[in-house]
Amino acid sequence: MLERVRIVLIGTSHPGNIGGIARAMHNMGLADLALVAPRCEVITQDSISRASGADHLLHSAQVFATIEDAVADCTLAVGASARSRTLPWPMLTPRELADRLPGECQSLSARVALVFGREDSGLTNAELQRCHAHVHIPTNVDFSSLNLAAAVQVLAYECRMAWLSSSNHEHSTNDPADTAQPVTVSEADDELASHAALEHYFEHLERVLIAIGFHDPNKPRQLMARLRRLYLRARPEQMEMNILRGILSTTEKAAQQKQPRK
Amino acid sequence: MLERVRIVLIGTSHPGNIGGIARAMHNMGLADLALVAPRCEVITQDSISRASGADHLLHSAQVFATIEDAVADCTLAVGASARSRTLPWPMLTPRELADRLPGECQSLSARVALVFGREDSGLTNAELQRCHAHVHIPTNVDFSSLNLAAAVQVLAYECRMAWLSSSNHEHSTNDPADTAQPVTVSEADDELASHAALEHYFEHLERVLIAIGFHDPNKPRQLMARLRRLYLRARPEQMEMNILRGILSTTEKAAQQKQPRK
Repeated sequence: MLERVRIVLIGTSHPGNIGGIARAMHNMGLADLALVAPRCEVITQDSISRASGADHLLHSAQVFATIEDAVADCTLAVGASARSRTLPWPMLTPRELADRLPGECQSLSARVALVFGREDSGLTNAELQRCHAHVHIPTNVDFSSLNLAAAVQVLAYECRMAWLSSSNHEHSTNDPADTAQPVTVSEADDELASHAALEHYFEHLERVLIAIGFHDPNKPRQLMARLRRLYLRARPEQMEMNILRGILSTTEKAAQQKQPRK
Repeated sequence: MLERVRIVLIGTSHPGNIGGIARAMHNMGLADLALVAPRCEVITQDSISRASGADHLLHSAQVFATIEDAVADCTLAVGASARSRTLPWPMLTPRELADRLPGECQSLSARVALVFGREDSGLTNAELQRCHAHVHIPTNVDFSSLNLAAAVQVLAYECRMAWLSSSNHEHSTNDPADTAQPVTVSEADDELASHAALEHYFEHLERVLIAIGFHDPNKPRQLMARLRRLYLRARPEQMEMNILRGILSTTEKAAQQKQPRK
């Protein structure tokens, strides 16, 4: 389960924090670190010192240009947020997130991204809206800004606790009906759509909505954000995604056929 | 509840860690920081920078010479430990510790100390044996040494989660029988003995055991450690402590009266 959890850091500016995060991840058994447009060097004396023996995670970290690239193959993306801003989004506590992890990670193709923003300004609304849900670490209302490495530590710890209780559960069960359940799920054809598939869908959707005159990108209001929230909450399967894309393509063709007639 | 939790740091050697701990504590609503024989300056550029606005905790931190002084008024002391060493001791997970906190903190005189050791070597056996229980943060067996500030962050986070669920519980109950329970407990005469009272008892006990020839401090084996574990587990009340001390004093007098006759 833990090997399917990716820590995604966006626009990090302090090498020491990246090193501290590598240490926290390795301590808790996580290994998949992704950096999106870091605003500092990753391998420095400070990051290696703070990694304290976990610097192989710094060397194996993948660097991406955008959040979309970093979570493209993920089936669940959860953004760390002080609180939901413009548009309320599904909110989880760290424990609720952890409780969902064993179920989320049953499929072989499952990948869960935990996305963390900049030290000074967190995640942008656009980045938050690329996540299925947001996770808020409960803090003192008068002093709510956690250190980045501390925030990763808390979520990584909750991941480990969830993994420990789920593997204890597996070891303690002697009922073949119980052990059969995960097999059924991973054998099923209904794999969740990847994040990249959803992003392609949202791009396609917006294009079609503009084409049909429903959506004016100069007066966007919250339209795409609300649609994102809806579909991300629904967690479409691959087959459903194919259907939705098929509908869009058909709509697009119909709109193109109409225009020349005007 | 949170105001009754003290973070005790023993022999800390990096000001940055103390600053990071102040930030983590303030983020989670803890304010009582105690330092035992720190091996570095507490107020430095690095500690203030890492405290990131929580440096009032650095200024209000109390400095003590020994662990006994730092936990003297505490009714429960829990030591952070990689794992139990020479002698197995009551072990808690961070969550088990947190689950106990609301009950532990009901009395007005309750004080809970969470004790953390040195960055390089943790707590000594002697220090661990001054604690009622040990808490172990589950970690990767191949890379188990947590950063000190990260360890404090995890336990402080669990304290806050426990506080949030206990205060939610209080707000949601309308049954006077439920709300009456804490009042009964705090009105009762059976306050727990303080840590200082227990330490005085252990000193007295060892003196008496030597006096009566039961204990040879040159061949200590695990005798005092085992007795400590027993009494700390029992959580003596003040009245019971008085009785135990009275027994010792009586034994001591009896032993002194016998010796001159030899």
